[in-house]
Amino acid sequence: MNQAEMTAELGRILSPERVLSGPAHDRAYDCDAYTVDRSRPQVVVLPESTAEAAAVVAWCHRHAVPFTPRGAGTGLSGGSLAALGGVVISTKRMTKILSVDVENRRLRAQAGAVNLRLSQAVAAHGLHFAPDPSSQSVSTLGGNIAENSGGPHTLKYGVTVQHVSGLTLVGFDGRVIELQEGPGLDLLSLVVGSEGTLGLVTEAEVRLTPNPEHVVTLLASFAQVRSATETVAAIIQAGVIPAALEMMDHGIMEAVRAAFGLRFPAEARALLLIECDGSPDRVGPEVETVARICRDHACLELAEAADSAERARLWTARKKGVGALGRIAPTLVTHDGVIPRSKLPDMLDAVDRIGAEFGLKVANIFHAGDGNLHPIFCFDDREPGVVDRVVAAGEKIMRLCIEWGGSVTGEHGIGVEKLDLISLMFDEDDLALQRRAQSIFHNDSGVNPCKIIPNQKGCVEHMKRWRGVAT
Amino acid sequence: MNQAEMTAELGRILSPERVLSGPAHDRAYDCDAYTVDRSRPQVVVLPESTAEAAAVVAWCHRHAVPFTPRGAGTGLSGGSLAALGGVVISTKRMTKILSVDVENRRLRAQAGAVNLRLSQAVAAHGLHFAPDPSSQSVSTLGGNIAENSGGPHTLKYGVTVQHVSGLTLVGFDGRVIELQEGPGLDLLSLVVGSEGTLGLVTEAEVRLTPNPEHVVTLLASFAQVRSATETVAAIIQAGVIPAALEMMDHGIMEAVRAAFGLRFPAEARALLLIECDGSPDRVGPEVETVARICRDHACLELAEAADSAERARLWTARKKGVGALGRIAPTLVTHDGVIPRSKLPDMLDAVDRIGAEFGLKVANIFHAGDGNLHPIFCFDDREPGVVDRVVAAGEKIMRLCIEWGGSVTGEHGIGVEKLDLISLMFDEDDLALQRRAQSIFHNDSGVNPCKIIPNQKGCVEHMKRWRGVAT
Repeated sequence: MNQAEMTAELGRILSPERVLSGPAHDRAYDCDAYTVDRSRPQVVVLPESTAEAAAVVAWCHRHAVPFTPRGAGTGLSGGSLAALGGVVISTKRMTKILSVDVENRRLRAQAGAVNLRLSQAVAAHGLHFAPDPSSQSVSTLGGNIAENSGGPHTLKYGVTVQHVSGLTLVGFDGRVIELQEGPGLDLLSLVVGSEGTLGLVTEAEVRLTPNPEHVVTLLASFAQVRSATETVAAIIQAGVIPAALEMMDHGIMEAVRAAFGLRFPAEARALLLIECDGSPDRVGPEVETVARICRDHACLELAEAADSAERARLWTARKKGVGALGRIAPTLVTHDGVIPRSKLPDMLDAVDRIGAEFGLKVANIFHAGDGNLHPIFCFDDREPGVVDRVVAAGEKIMRLCIEWGGSVTGEHGIGVEKLDLISLMFDEDDLALQRRAQSIFHNDSGVNPCKIIPNQKGCVEHMKRWRGVAT
Repeated sequence: MNQAEMTAELGRILSPERVLSGPAHDRAYDCDAYTVDRSRPQVVVLPESTAEAAAVVAWCHRHAVPFTPRGAGTGLSGGSLAALGGVVISTKRMTKILSVDVENRRLRAQAGAVNLRLSQAVAAHGLHFAPDPSSQSVSTLGGNIAENSGGPHTLKYGVTVQHVSGLTLVGFDGRVIELQEGPGLDLLSLVVGSEGTLGLVTEAEVRLTPNPEHVVTLLASFAQVRSATETVAAIIQAGVIPAALEMMDHGIMEAVRAAFGLRFPAEARALLLIECDGSPDRVGPEVETVARICRDHACLELAEAADSAERARLWTARKKGVGALGRIAPTLVTHDGVIPRSKLPDMLDAVDRIGAEFGLKVANIFHAGDGNLHPIFCFDDREPGVVDRVVAAGEKIMRLCIEWGGSVTGEHGIGVEKLDLISLMFDEDDLALQRRAQSIFHNDSGVNPCKIIPNQKGCVEHMKRWRGVAT
């Protein structure tokens, strides 16, 4: 079916102004925040309800047109890429908060509701939605569910799956499926983190978490990366579970120094951001313990913030570090791997070495407490051959993650980015199980195709086509 | 195949002394801790390794003999009942701790390792395995995984699925499947809590949790059940997450008074056991907050224990309450339901009313912080008709759980006990999804048959046969 026919037919299901097509839209929707691979949808639709979304999916199924769910497009592994073209179903107009139950701490919202807005909606009740990916001011509940998003506070509060108690899924043929936590085989946990490959999540019920009474944030700088990683180990060893325990290396420090004029001791090579929260009586002693451990590990400087303005300042390097890198290189690729916490120091050395080997600038942000690393390659994708080097260097780091007993993705998903790498972790039997797990919900090659499971029909050729094709 | 042939053939796969059959064994293995339904296996086998267990399962598959995994047999919904006879595969000889990784806080053990022994094995390193079902001194890792067990400390530390990072599963035909946490669709979470219906778990890797530096236990008594439930709400509201927050009603108090001579104020109708743990500096203020809230809610008496002997005394009512009930009635049936926390007071009233209506003594233990109730019916199963009344009263309570937005099982599973009730929560589409989820691993009616999914072939007739048949 050609683009004009699709636009017309879908316009009759929704309304013409909520069906987007044409060059500007193609371009806006040809990738998410993983920009290495690109592919244009034929049409982008903006349903406003589960019923409308279901009607679109049913139409796609009837016409064998693939569809791809999309939230804010902040995903980092290409999960919302329209890999085979077809229809992108955007949740941009599905932003309603449907109900709030303060007493039992539950909230129900449409999938397009922005993460941060969930928390704002219940702030007056002293509650919030715990998952806090860096993208939380724009990323959506549906996107967070698709990727099982974590964030800096994952260490203490867990990832999205621990905060979702029910969801509405539009299945491959447009049928509407309600999944709740509770008895029986746990299908809810199967859908959370499935990267939109089992169907389109249109609504969800989430758990709300009480706001901490008191928060203290510490920023410590170290002359040696290894001192910082050993500080992380010692904090965990002491039985303190900070709300956040984030590490940034000199690459990030340089960038935020240049971008925002932040000052660090000249010899500093690593920063640790540590946040403790809870009742004031509990936070005080925790902070003392953490500060003592930082000093024991020869920290150069230790700043402490107990009000929100000061806190925002200390978070600058963490929250704006990636953005600041963007000022020194036009293209960034953020990798996502996991290793046992004990391998952190060795891994940081290895990342440095691999960056040098491929002639690439690399900076590191770590969710250190979780052993979740984010090496960020900084480059200019107009430079011939550089994308191949970035891909090769990333693969080398990811292979190390596997070798050291970790994983090629911690919180950014497999998407299209990690399809090749996943074959290093999964053998044929594992892949068969994955395909069978998908077949609980469908055997349809049109539901967010070419993600998670390698070697899907039509995808290899297509991947070759888009890899390295700039817009 | 007759029993003698099975015994001989399985004896060649294992060794004759590890294949049990005959009247004494039939009787020992005809139920688990849910004693209402009974069914005798033909043979009980005791493999010692994954390879041996796999050989037994492969044999069962070849001969179309059903098999049922069994740990310590402490399950409360009949999950290890040999519902169609056949082979019970006991993990009693699979108790090895295979490896301990202190630095990354992981332990790998065989499925038959007793819960408490995992913690003892790493106690010297200041670590423990967090799930602590009341049965933890006998129940096994495999059983805990099958039931996704919680325990009094679930409120703060979560249930089993949050503490399992990998497992070895023997599939329906004897193939060995390794599942790890990590990328892709989350099959690990699907197996945990599947009540042994997806295959036989033979080994698992678990996360270890640091022991709290300091623990303070409080036991508060109240003249009104409602004061106790409101105290629970106020503690949670204050942002305190106690390590345990358990409630016991006057039925339990009477029993422990009679059994152990424990003393409570004469007018007390409810007890709250509250435990706070963490660093001493953190625990102190938490305990103060909790104590203030108890007093604000007119508690009659408030005992505090900071050493382990005193603590053990305060835990008596909670840990030995069910046992004490056993002294006043020969048969106990412990139900397991979930309601939103806000419905706790109404639910306790309703349980009392329903007990009276059916002429049954009922006592209550609640994981109050989780909204997870355990009404315990105390009766003598030799009394004609009483089992039917117990089943009917239980069903009435469970229907209320559903009506009030909860679930018919919190942590004891569906097993065979809740098969009828699950149909009240699941419609045909839900059941179809459950069946498809099972079919990821098999479509074999011989893998722990008649559990979780209602109306399996051959089970209805069989259920009728065993229900009410005493040994």
